[in-house]
Amino acid sequence: MNAPDKFAQLLSLTREPFPASTKNYITGSRPDLRVPVRDIALTNGEQVSVYDTSGPYTDPAAVIDVRRGLPSVRGGWIEGRGDTERYQGRPQQALDDGSKSEDAARLAVLRAEAAALQRAPLRARSGANVTQMHYARKGIVTPEMEYVALRENGRREWMAQYQQDAAREQRLAGNPMGASIPKIITPEFVRDEVARGRAIIPANINHPEVEPMAIGRNFKVKINANIGNSAVTSSIEEEVEKLVWAIRWGADNVMDLSTGKNIHTTRDWIVRNSPVPIGTVPIYQALEKVGGIAEDLTWAIFRDTLIEQAEQGVDYFTIHAGVRLAFIHLTAGRRTGIVSRGGSIMAKWCMAHHRESFLYEHFEDICDIMKQYDVSFSLGDGLRPGCASDANDEAQFAELHTLGELTQIAWKHDVQTMIEGPGHVPMHMIQANMTEQLKTCHEAPFYTLGPLTIDIAPGYDHIASAIGAAMIGWMGTAMLCYVTPKEHLGLPDRDDVKQGIIAYKIAAHAADVAKGHPGARARDDALSQARFDFRWQDQFNLGLDPETAQQYHDETLPKDSAKVAHFCSMCGPKFCSMKITQEVREFAAQGMQEKAEEFRGTGGQLYVPIQPAG
Amino acid sequence: MNAPDKFAQLLSLTREPFPASTKNYITGSRPDLRVPVRDIALTNGEQVSVYDTSGPYTDPAAVIDVRRGLPSVRGGWIEGRGDTERYQGRPQQALDDGSKSEDAARLAVLRAEAAALQRAPLRARSGANVTQMHYARKGIVTPEMEYVALRENGRREWMAQYQQDAAREQRLAGNPMGASIPKIITPEFVRDEVARGRAIIPANINHPEVEPMAIGRNFKVKINANIGNSAVTSSIEEEVEKLVWAIRWGADNVMDLSTGKNIHTTRDWIVRNSPVPIGTVPIYQALEKVGGIAEDLTWAIFRDTLIEQAEQGVDYFTIHAGVRLAFIHLTAGRRTGIVSRGGSIMAKWCMAHHRESFLYEHFEDICDIMKQYDVSFSLGDGLRPGCASDANDEAQFAELHTLGELTQIAWKHDVQTMIEGPGHVPMHMIQANMTEQLKTCHEAPFYTLGPLTIDIAPGYDHIASAIGAAMIGWMGTAMLCYVTPKEHLGLPDRDDVKQGIIAYKIAAHAADVAKGHPGARARDDALSQARFDFRWQDQFNLGLDPETAQQYHDETLPKDSAKVAHFCSMCGPKFCSMKITQEVREFAAQGMQEKAEEFRGTGGQLYVPIQPAG
Repeated sequence: MNAPDKFAQLLSLTREPFPASTKNYITGSRPDLRVPVRDIALTNGEQVSVYDTSGPYTDPAAVIDVRRGLPSVRGGWIEGRGDTERYQGRPQQALDDGSKSEDAARLAVLRAEAAALQRAPLRARSGANVTQMHYARKGIVTPEMEYVALRENGRREWMAQYQQDAAREQRLAGNPMGASIPKIITPEFVRDEVARGRAIIPANINHPEVEPMAIGRNFKVKINANIGNSAVTSSIEEEVEKLVWAIRWGADNVMDLSTGKNIHTTRDWIVRNSPVPIGTVPIYQALEKVGGIAEDLTWAIFRDTLIEQAEQGVDYFTIHAGVRLAFIHLTAGRRTGIVSRGGSIMAKWCMAHHRESFLYEHFEDICDIMKQYDVSFSLGDGLRPGCASDANDEAQFAELHTLGELTQIAWKHDVQTMIEGPGHVPMHMIQANMTEQLKTCHEAPFYTLGPLTIDIAPGYDHIASAIGAAMIGWMGTAMLCYVTPKEHLGLPDRDDVKQGIIAYKIAAHAADVAKGHPGARARDDALSQARFDFRWQDQFNLGLDPETAQQYHDETLPKDSAKVAHFCSMCGPKFCSMKITQEVREFAAQGMQEKAEEFRGTGGQLYVPIQPAG
Repeated sequence: MNAPDKFAQLLSLTREPFPASTKNYITGSRPDLRVPVRDIALTNGEQVSVYDTSGPYTDPAAVIDVRRGLPSVRGGWIEGRGDTERYQGRPQQALDDGSKSEDAARLAVLRAEAAALQRAPLRARSGANVTQMHYARKGIVTPEMEYVALRENGRREWMAQYQQDAAREQRLAGNPMGASIPKIITPEFVRDEVARGRAIIPANINHPEVEPMAIGRNFKVKINANIGNSAVTSSIEEEVEKLVWAIRWGADNVMDLSTGKNIHTTRDWIVRNSPVPIGTVPIYQALEKVGGIAEDLTWAIFRDTLIEQAEQGVDYFTIHAGVRLAFIHLTAGRRTGIVSRGGSIMAKWCMAHHRESFLYEHFEDICDIMKQYDVSFSLGDGLRPGCASDANDEAQFAELHTLGELTQIAWKHDVQTMIEGPGHVPMHMIQANMTEQLKTCHEAPFYTLGPLTIDIAPGYDHIASAIGAAMIGWMGTAMLCYVTPKEHLGLPDRDDVKQGIIAYKIAAHAADVAKGHPGARARDDALSQARFDFRWQDQFNLGLDPETAQQYHDETLPKDSAKVAHFCSMCGPKFCSMKITQEVREFAAQGMQEKAEEFRGTGGQLYVPIQPAG
């Protein structure tokens, strides 16, 4: 079949709602402020409502045409603020899709298909600053902030029982590790967190399709999935499908790390079809424009690329402005040197020219661009460790201190900022990363890649890193960049992306539970209750991946009757601990407690004669 | 194909050595003390040597006949101590293979096939105590202890470089969290750890095939894999194959949790073919003997089952003697009650009879049996939490305190003892488990199931629990019981067992690295060095699963030339951070450091004019 057919078929697969799930919306203070939730209907009549990243794709009522893009969510809000102007925009250039597009005919087709995705861009009116941080600092609660508050709270009603348990028993309280998590997130709280830089809402004014979300230590821990084409494999259709697939499984953000052909056109497709914030590493595209020769990069080319991508609607830029000339030699003794692509490009540039990084020198110029579009900084950790033995070294922390310094410059411009972190860090060295980041970066959100706790698990690095991710998430990291099973080995395919996301949903949720986010544990409790009640279907449907759970159950007990059976496949019908527990509970109700207390009253050592048969 | 053919075919698959690997032996103070290691030959001429659990199966020179069992490793040592006697043994009974063996003809075939596996059992001579703890306390260093010492150390020579790094940089030292890990494990150190109860060497005198290993906080963290038949599915052939498969991937211990048909015969097959210690939960078989009716259990039936299994060579018994009558009502308010099968059986028995547990009352009688065969206790946590909201509750800790009390009784008899632990525990509640266990159980080794950090990941509980397992392993747990992707859903198949083991090898290794076990990080360093040097084949071969790593790489870059390529599939040939780093290092060697210092000498703020083109 030809490529578009294949794409259509794939996409149709991923529009199905999750089992027993309905996409609903919580309406805010204005009718156009509608926050999605996924309501899961349980077989006992209860309803569990969960955070939903999947966008309109899982709404059967939504009409989706990837060649026209998603409907606008924020257009009216942006317009209503009256501080932006639509303009002609930067003319598209031949180099935007890379210097070596081997198949001009195919590119022409792709561009034509994406023609309906072209938008005249918005920018701040002269002298205006359109960042959420700017509004927050002026005391304005934007619709984006209200949206975030409603989204973080979700529907609280169904959690009441679980929250009562937590309130009653100190044992069930979390340990926030220094975070300040309120019981209810108010729009004002969101504003305050954004104003002080402790949270960001990545939301470029040219990405009105985005459903606003927050990244910050006092909100739920978020995850990011990377997608991207490549010089070696992949196609645009696959990349958009990866986006839809990634947000279906729970990616809160997606980074487009394309480095190959058709890079500009790919981005049009992704941004226009994305309900989640899109991040990029602009230096990758800039490098394509100079034929892959790092030393040929210039500020002019980089600046032009920033504007190109800001106009398209990219929500945050990874910028490795902390890779300073003076730090490069600190990596020379490392086991694996510089492993960040952006970091190594900038290191090479600095070395070739024997000059300070143009990103560092032009940092304020970059801020001037960011604030015209509300692009957030993701200050890249170009000197992050690439293996356990390079963790927490002088190079890494020298850069981190610089990122703290740059954070304050960004904040001077009211540009939203988060800080990228490692990487490869053994468990006992993780806390030091978080402590140092909080201190030197003034509580700007931390966004880490794992970290991987060991190096010997190629093929399973999603697990080796989920351990570190869960721990650092608990300690205060706001967003976790996923790692797939293909890390270090190859490009992730559809299933790898899913595996990486599920591993990171586990890590993020484990962190939320440990921090004691209000209601975080409620879904666990609902699932455990279903497990205890032998409501198999509810158990599947409340999990992160209902289909796989059901499939695993079916492999052992395929019959429908087993879905309501009061036993499970581990023990069989005769021998089931949960069944026995139910009987124990009935015994207990019949006065067992009194018997037991009577027993304990005698010191618990009462001699009981052994029966003849035993 | 018929069943034996299928088995033969499967088994032949799992006898292949790992890629580039050779099984070698380190010989101790006597020629029959030969400790296996797996030596991995790298393409740069180096050799990396790793701990090897796979037994003779990966030794091409070994002749394996599963119907005759493995050769004896310890027979001469046991005989040489002169404190045992061979005796007739308990006559086999019809009930030993379960009360409802539906297929008598098939059972007869299976028993006949296993006939050559029958052994007249050994027991301690009258008045003797044959436990490793007994010898240790008498100051005797047994061959088993020397074996363990050599095995824990492995070959140190190849680690020298990595250990120098660690010695030089405090940054790279681990945090042992209270453990006392020597640089070199001596046989005397092993003796001392066993004598004080801080480590066990599970090694029944009727399991001479076992390659001795230690479970203790100051040794490498070990993992256990569960296998077992079931009333619903499975066959003996599959079970033995699961054992071989499990130890191939790194299971240090295997528990046979069979509850279905042919339970005795299955065990003969497994024990005789196992180079790793085998644990069981004897109450499961006892329950089969009484037709699954918990209240019909008697001390006589249980005692008979203990002797039956001790004679077969089981190395440790899970015994839920801490489930006391007075604790049962403490579980009535739980969300998921009692989830341990053994715990719920004993609870039901106690409730039905309104009597104290016969396991608790007969604990000293049990010790008398254990010490005649050197079966170790794995004191079961029958009241472990079954979900996050039941974690660390009164029932759980009441039982743990009782296990501490029982530990001291076991130690009075010089019976080796470890303590089982949870289960389901959110991250912030894990440390309390370890602290409480160390305190109340006098540093007896802790052996935990996970713990699972969240409840919402059915299908992925190997990941949800690997997070908890890594953390509690770092904190001091000596052995981690694996969890497979099928946990809570169904019976694990071949691939599930592998997935569970790999996840737990990751957790155990992450714990060893964090604790700073001497040399633990050396394999990581060797792999990372290979990664940096683009020695792809070495990178695969040093990983936990070389085949999967290579397969993932091949999916993107299938050509052989890519295995020596100086780039990887993530970036393509033009754009590779590691390649750039190598160039950076060459620059650095050309006096970059001086340049950088000169730069820093000017305050690091040197103005550099921007070139016209940029």
